[in-house]
Amino acid sequence: MLDTIADILEGLEETIISKLIDRAQFKANPVAYEAGRSGFTGEALLSLFDLRLRYQEEMDASFGRYCVPEERPFCRDLPRPKRTVNLPDTGLRIDDFDRVNMTAQIKEHYLSLLGGMCEAGDDGQYGSSVEHDVYALQAISRRIHYGALYVAESKYRHDPGGCDRLLSRGDTEGLLQMLTRKEVEERILERVGEKVARAQAEVNRSVRRLIEPETVLAFYRDCIIPLTKKGEAAYIENRQR
Amino acid sequence: MLDTIADILEGLEETIISKLIDRAQFKANPVAYEAGRSGFTGEALLSLFDLRLRYQEEMDASFGRYCVPEERPFCRDLPRPKRTVNLPDTGLRIDDFDRVNMTAQIKEHYLSLLGGMCEAGDDGQYGSSVEHDVYALQAISRRIHYGALYVAESKYRHDPGGCDRLLSRGDTEGLLQMLTRKEVEERILERVGEKVARAQAEVNRSVRRLIEPETVLAFYRDCIIPLTKKGEAAYIENRQR
Repeated sequence: MLDTIADILEGLEETIISKLIDRAQFKANPVAYEAGRSGFTGEALLSLFDLRLRYQEEMDASFGRYCVPEERPFCRDLPRPKRTVNLPDTGLRIDDFDRVNMTAQIKEHYLSLLGGMCEAGDDGQYGSSVEHDVYALQAISRRIHYGALYVAESKYRHDPGGCDRLLSRGDTEGLLQMLTRKEVEERILERVGEKVARAQAEVNRSVRRLIEPETVLAFYRDCIIPLTKKGEAAYIENRQR
Repeated sequence: MLDTIADILEGLEETIISKLIDRAQFKANPVAYEAGRSGFTGEALLSLFDLRLRYQEEMDASFGRYCVPEERPFCRDLPRPKRTVNLPDTGLRIDDFDRVNMTAQIKEHYLSLLGGMCEAGDDGQYGSSVEHDVYALQAISRRIHYGALYVAESKYRHDPGGCDRLLSRGDTEGLLQMLTRKEVEERILERVGEKVARAQAEVNRSVRRLIEPETVLAFYRDCIIPLTKKGEAAYIENRQR
């Protein structure tokens, strides 16, 4: 089971990489992240980025996206789904998937990634920039929550007694350590770096801007992997017994 | 100028290919394209696909996407933009970009592509399928309209007298022939086939479904290239003098 989950997580790497490359075709465009500068009348508190994220999630909520465990929303108070989504049994044991919602921290990490990943400055392409931000965030969030939920359930089943002992002592640090597989993490980082290089090996550089493999690798190391583990711990702490 | 346009069109190939591969990770899911089976109450005339396309375009219209010449909408009666989009001078000479709108034919070609590209059957993933349909359609439409508008303007400027002579005779066939560059088309087809193969060369086949280079190549040959040329002819016919 853990092998299948690892394969699925691996399959999501291409998606994350291609969304980041898409975003990096536009400059950093700081105006798009400043509250009150969206150009939308009456929206003094939100940036164009905030608005795009909310509009996208309202649409997605109507279509039932957040019925899927690994699709966790960044916004609160979204509309109810307008259709019924029939899920196969997920095998997860938690009463509310949103007990594992790492989106606030994902957004923070992502927004600080932009400075290093995009060319500095303003190209006026605010709409395209925030559109691609939202697609990148969705791909990153799916990866983190898929890992957090399914890896944690699998590891719990492998050693329920060990997990319960750590929990009863309130030893979150020990739990995080139990969830750590150093050699797996290193393999992921190496593979991601190679994929970023390969994805860009043959592009026409006169029209496509390249990103550094190291940028994505560092994002995996400092955001995706640790937040997945924090999410795993949150899942195990909230798992129904 | 024609070289820069060709480079930009080339840069859009990766996007189209990756969106098609994304869609092909789900089965054909014919239910998602049947009117009245979306699960949305009161929507007897539309399919889930139709609804997703409309919701997406309503959101995008609010953000000003259709102020951009090559972004032509599939739906009619969309809301006005809620923000002002400042475009640099495009160099195009047409009073309404929607005089060149090939979306009806793009949609028809795309929907018949699905049967050959996706695995037959129903995996229940209707929401994801139509989400990726819309992203693929947007990428294809951008490629076709960018080519139609900017290639046509560039070719017109190269030989206004020749274009005007064909137009005054009402010789659309002659115009299409004038717009045809056989050797360029063959180079595109070859390159697209190679890119599809390369994009999938190293993926983990246990989690990612592959698509045939020939499928995308045929779509370029039978849809993207001819509709770009039809769009070019429409642009020249409607160009302001």
